[in-house]
Amino acid sequence: MNCWFTEMQTPDMAISCRVKKTLHEEKTPFQHLAVYETDQFGRMLALDDVIQTTIMDEFVYHEMITHVGLNTHPNPRRVLVIGGGDGGSIREILKHPSVELATLVEIDERVIAAAREYLPEISCALGDPRVRVIVDDGIKHVKENRDTYDMIIVDSTDPVGPAEGLFGRAFYQDVHDALTGDGLFVAQTESPFFNRDLIPRIIQNVRSIFPVTRLFLACVPTYPGGLWTFTMGSKKYDPLEANLEQLPDLKTRYYTPAVHRAAFVLPPFVEELLQSEEG
Amino acid sequence: MNCWFTEMQTPDMAISCRVKKTLHEEKTPFQHLAVYETDQFGRMLALDDVIQTTIMDEFVYHEMITHVGLNTHPNPRRVLVIGGGDGGSIREILKHPSVELATLVEIDERVIAAAREYLPEISCALGDPRVRVIVDDGIKHVKENRDTYDMIIVDSTDPVGPAEGLFGRAFYQDVHDALTGDGLFVAQTESPFFNRDLIPRIIQNVRSIFPVTRLFLACVPTYPGGLWTFTMGSKKYDPLEANLEQLPDLKTRYYTPAVHRAAFVLPPFVEELLQSEEG
Repeated sequence: MNCWFTEMQTPDMAISCRVKKTLHEEKTPFQHLAVYETDQFGRMLALDDVIQTTIMDEFVYHEMITHVGLNTHPNPRRVLVIGGGDGGSIREILKHPSVELATLVEIDERVIAAAREYLPEISCALGDPRVRVIVDDGIKHVKENRDTYDMIIVDSTDPVGPAEGLFGRAFYQDVHDALTGDGLFVAQTESPFFNRDLIPRIIQNVRSIFPVTRLFLACVPTYPGGLWTFTMGSKKYDPLEANLEQLPDLKTRYYTPAVHRAAFVLPPFVEELLQSEEG
Repeated sequence: MNCWFTEMQTPDMAISCRVKKTLHEEKTPFQHLAVYETDQFGRMLALDDVIQTTIMDEFVYHEMITHVGLNTHPNPRRVLVIGGGDGGSIREILKHPSVELATLVEIDERVIAAAREYLPEISCALGDPRVRVIVDDGIKHVKENRDTYDMIIVDSTDPVGPAEGLFGRAFYQDVHDALTGDGLFVAQTESPFFNRDLIPRIIQNVRSIFPVTRLFLACVPTYPGGLWTFTMGSKKYDPLEANLEQLPDLKTRYYTPAVHRAAFVLPPFVEELLQSEEG
């Protein structure tokens, strides 16, 4: 079979992978949703023809968007995931015994349904009694829930379409207000190679609201360029000073305490994204 | 213009980039050589339709294949690059004042010529008086030059075609013998996602010859999956114990002493490549 999925990662660059079978395809009220069985990456979820997650490399993204923040906060009890309908972030959050309630607010219920059906390795924790699944707009949810969460994870698509509002200053202010007094948030914030205008704006916005703002890196092969940024805004705790000595066994394939620390070591070409708006 | 270059990164995965102009194309005695002007990556060198280097991201690869080793050795005077006909590794090596002679042994003189003509930002140091350019087989060169180099850099193409012999035990033994008594080598050793059979074999071979064997990581967007491994074999010095306090200003965009140390922090899915052959 010579069927290929191609994602235009930028107007001038594409990634393609051979498709064994199209497992599911539909137009939801929000986006085009597809699940493919691929030869290279295993099952793969694409939204509007952009790869969201694959069985091969989802562990990198889901471990890094969750554990870095969860291990920075000494006692995260209530955790919110905005987006992340595949359930991968929820699965990782539940590895932390301190967590009493993990809330998923996904705008597109069809993403959740597709993940439950076709990506059980990723969505497996969505039925856990500690999980609350809400189909709603994350922007609305943080506006309506003040002083509620110890940690918020912004597990969004790219800043076009339904997720555009998740990258603006007003949203970060609402995230701040939805957090408890010592809360923190982590958001996926795109590529340091291909989003060099966006990242300084995000950093500037987060810095204007949170006393602690940090950028960290991980390498996700199916995302443009591999290297990926995550931004943390924190009211109190600094991920560089986190006590990582006595952690539960997280059974991770990418995250470790040493990887936590190394992820904040930025090459100069990334560091300059943080400094460009300071002058 | 809607002309695209596509590299089959594996039989089931491809990367494509829009080509503004084909600057050069030829069949050399060793391989197909092309230089493209691309919209995304700037000028790009491809050998047998595999991306070797691009103006956009070459700094990551060339800084990491050179400075980690050069800063591990306290006084590298004579340095050999095998392959690397684009000259990027030579450019970085010459930033170290201790280096008296940098020797490039490239099997395909047409690669050097194309780099000199089309990639001056990368090849710019090849005319330096401290540089000796030899067109020859690197395997032969290390056999014929014993106890000669303080550091050897294996800046090769993938382990198919002309570079296949640069990944075998016999070659690593010759590299060992071409090094001085406290010498070390660094080789590019492919992707921890897509070359999971190859890397443990390399590590096993290097460990059987060198007292210090270390794997480190960097993220090169135009290589498959982004995340890339480099292997160091060293007779004496350990990169984890290198004194990185008083370095010359290397004017780097990726490498720093902190990045040096962080590059050796391996996620568990990479660490297991090192352990798989120990049992």
